[in-house]
Amino acid sequence: MAEQEPCRLTATKALDLIRSNKLTVEAYARSLLSRIESRNAAVKAWAYLDPELVLEQARRLDEIPVDKRGPLHGLPVGIKDIMHTKDMPTEHNSPIYKNSHVAVDAAPVAVLRAAGALIFGKTATTEFAATTAGPPTRNPHNEAHTPGGSSSGSGAAVADFQVPVALGTQTGGSMVRPGSFNGIYALKPTWNALSREGVRIHSLILDTVGVFARCVEDLDILARVLGVTVTVTHAEPDQEREFEGVSGAKFGIVKGPVWNLAEPGTVSALQKAREILERHGAVVEEVDLPDAFNKIPEWHARIMSGDGGVSVFPEYQMEKSKVHGSLVDFVKNTKGYTRAQLLEAYDGIAMLRPRIDEIAGRYAALITPSVPGEALVGIEWTGEAAFCSMWTALHTPVVNIPGFGGENNLPIGLTLVAPRYHDQHLLSVAKTVGEIFAEEGGWKSTL
Amino acid sequence: MAEQEPCRLTATKALDLIRSNKLTVEAYARSLLSRIESRNAAVKAWAYLDPELVLEQARRLDEIPVDKRGPLHGLPVGIKDIMHTKDMPTEHNSPIYKNSHVAVDAAPVAVLRAAGALIFGKTATTEFAATTAGPPTRNPHNEAHTPGGSSSGSGAAVADFQVPVALGTQTGGSMVRPGSFNGIYALKPTWNALSREGVRIHSLILDTVGVFARCVEDLDILARVLGVTVTVTHAEPDQEREFEGVSGAKFGIVKGPVWNLAEPGTVSALQKAREILERHGAVVEEVDLPDAFNKIPEWHARIMSGDGGVSVFPEYQMEKSKVHGSLVDFVKNTKGYTRAQLLEAYDGIAMLRPRIDEIAGRYAALITPSVPGEALVGIEWTGEAAFCSMWTALHTPVVNIPGFGGENNLPIGLTLVAPRYHDQHLLSVAKTVGEIFAEEGGWKSTL
Repeated sequence: MAEQEPCRLTATKALDLIRSNKLTVEAYARSLLSRIESRNAAVKAWAYLDPELVLEQARRLDEIPVDKRGPLHGLPVGIKDIMHTKDMPTEHNSPIYKNSHVAVDAAPVAVLRAAGALIFGKTATTEFAATTAGPPTRNPHNEAHTPGGSSSGSGAAVADFQVPVALGTQTGGSMVRPGSFNGIYALKPTWNALSREGVRIHSLILDTVGVFARCVEDLDILARVLGVTVTVTHAEPDQEREFEGVSGAKFGIVKGPVWNLAEPGTVSALQKAREILERHGAVVEEVDLPDAFNKIPEWHARIMSGDGGVSVFPEYQMEKSKVHGSLVDFVKNTKGYTRAQLLEAYDGIAMLRPRIDEIAGRYAALITPSVPGEALVGIEWTGEAAFCSMWTALHTPVVNIPGFGGENNLPIGLTLVAPRYHDQHLLSVAKTVGEIFAEEGGWKSTL
Repeated sequence: MAEQEPCRLTATKALDLIRSNKLTVEAYARSLLSRIESRNAAVKAWAYLDPELVLEQARRLDEIPVDKRGPLHGLPVGIKDIMHTKDMPTEHNSPIYKNSHVAVDAAPVAVLRAAGALIFGKTATTEFAATTAGPPTRNPHNEAHTPGGSSSGSGAAVADFQVPVALGTQTGGSMVRPGSFNGIYALKPTWNALSREGVRIHSLILDTVGVFARCVEDLDILARVLGVTVTVTHAEPDQEREFEGVSGAKFGIVKGPVWNLAEPGTVSALQKAREILERHGAVVEEVDLPDAFNKIPEWHARIMSGDGGVSVFPEYQMEKSKVHGSLVDFVKNTKGYTRAQLLEAYDGIAMLRPRIDEIAGRYAALITPSVPGEALVGIEWTGEAAFCSMWTALHTPVVNIPGFGGENNLPIGLTLVAPRYHDQHLLSVAKTVGEIFAEEGGWKSTL
């Protein structure tokens, strides 16, 4: 048995201990459940959690003969509550779907379950992952603050040692923002690298399923099993190239079209990151993106509204009084967008995708803010997505790297970006850079 | 009561009779059920049909007070069996999903149900709507022939008066091809004009939910309710402009990059269409698309494979022996596509979308082949999608118009195309043109 409480193990370490018979799935699950019991009143990360179901699954997994076990055997995973799970309700934080059961797992859940994962529970989300009005979840580092959203529960639960890894989704900043606010790693992979079957739609062209973890190795394990990095289509060699270390590597800093939103914490994190990387021998230069990229925030807003209206139209037709006001605004097109404006957004962003691939391909990674600053006080607003939404729209993989802190000693992350389908390479960069930032960035989790 | 058997009514006429209390939903449903009883052994359009459930729903609808009835009150709709229906199984023609029940309606089903439609049954599809190996369904005009696919049952059932309208989907040619082979109208709307929540994914960027009917008025009614034409985003005036008649209108004929596949029936249909329209005073000219459009068939094939592999990856992980060989090929990437080739396809097609909008916008509509020719003998292969897949990839709305026949007197349709979001305008053109082709094209249904 490890000296550490099992709930504090990374996925990598826990899988190791389970594999070598030093930890049972049941003991691991019990440790997590006990952590949740002591912390749930404060953090409220779970939309659904049935300890009996968890333990029953854990015992069933423990009974599987060693030679029949999958690569994730016994790994507990939190599932954002906009993804169908065959043995739990999927409520989307919508009164319309209260206690709604869908008996078929969403694609990423099915893949994890087939690999032996323990589908642990459903994590709290904003309504349909499409509003910025927080669920009851609170930031585990300081309960007065938001954990971010829309993947609020997944981010908070992973940071708080309630589960080692969790699935989320991002349409604007719903992975990276809670990643940053909770001080953990978040991978939003290349768009459409894994199936989103059974995951609630906000926007087909934006939504991306991603993974939260407390170290990059854990992101890597899940990305492989989910088919993000060991993909269907053949990789070109440079997409999978191993990062050879910071010394001599070239990084591009992108302040981007909404740099004016950056608060002192983020300004200082980016400055520090530059200094640290340079100290380690990297070449760091600022990248001025071509002017066309400045239009992305407006284009992204049009798609959020137009596509959001399409996706919530059925609920609006069925029970409009139970739909959040900001979603009704999408259906009613309160902003008054025209179809020509929506098409300009789709097409304009599409034309910039190969351009950002080319630009990002010149560097080990681009480095860009994750958020304006620390998590705000209150849970009414999950925060600003403007720094993230450009990369979501551009379909590039991104990883939030923690390591920095703000004036309240709450975490602030930075985002690494690589060209589309360079997820494996990006993880390799994120591992090295993440370790350096954790060591020298100045912020450490006290949980 | 109408003199016609109710099963032969168009949706427009049936809704009229129900509204004016000249037809009960139950009597209408009984007429369709009796038609199905007499024809099912030959046509086999249904993957699931429970006459008791149909009649129970019909009676419940008949009891709803007149002032509480929706715009589609009592309209029977066939649902392709890759769309979730809360009261019926959804099997995707996959042994993995035998008898699988999902208790939440897919978005288009939910919207139709909320509008008072009678969700009639599930229509046969190829596996996950992603193969060209036919389900047991046969062409109602000649049972030795395929009805096309993947929306095989929806196309055959509507043509055979087993249901007035049905939902299908198109990723390559899965609406237009069965539309043409069965001699009925098929609308594939602008991509993402309506939600595909709860509809099995093959490709996020290609899949589009559409409607089959026996007249354009019926397409129009469904398109309005589904939110295709009365959309969230505001229409520009010319997107909704009423067609003012063939005389003086300009049509563009596009033979396209796979014209070499056209058989005598399609060559003659296109020639006839031109002569008919010119006789009615239209200006018809051939449109040579820029060379870049010639790459679309290859690009489309890459996306079918790459995206198909992503979408079937979960089933491959769970039960690979139960997945069709052609889908396993997608997962294994038998064609050996690289990620760079996939990205070139995504980006290349995206750049052509505004160009086709501009070109199609110069005409009342573009006219292009739907299929190489008549439906082939046998049900092993649902047929060639090459003429359709370009427009699916380009996201333009298309309508298959019947009216022509081949050497075996089986139907051959032609496709009308308009710029994205000009669905309402396109339906207006299709109505006039469809009536003329029905009158003068030379083919009439003998069912």
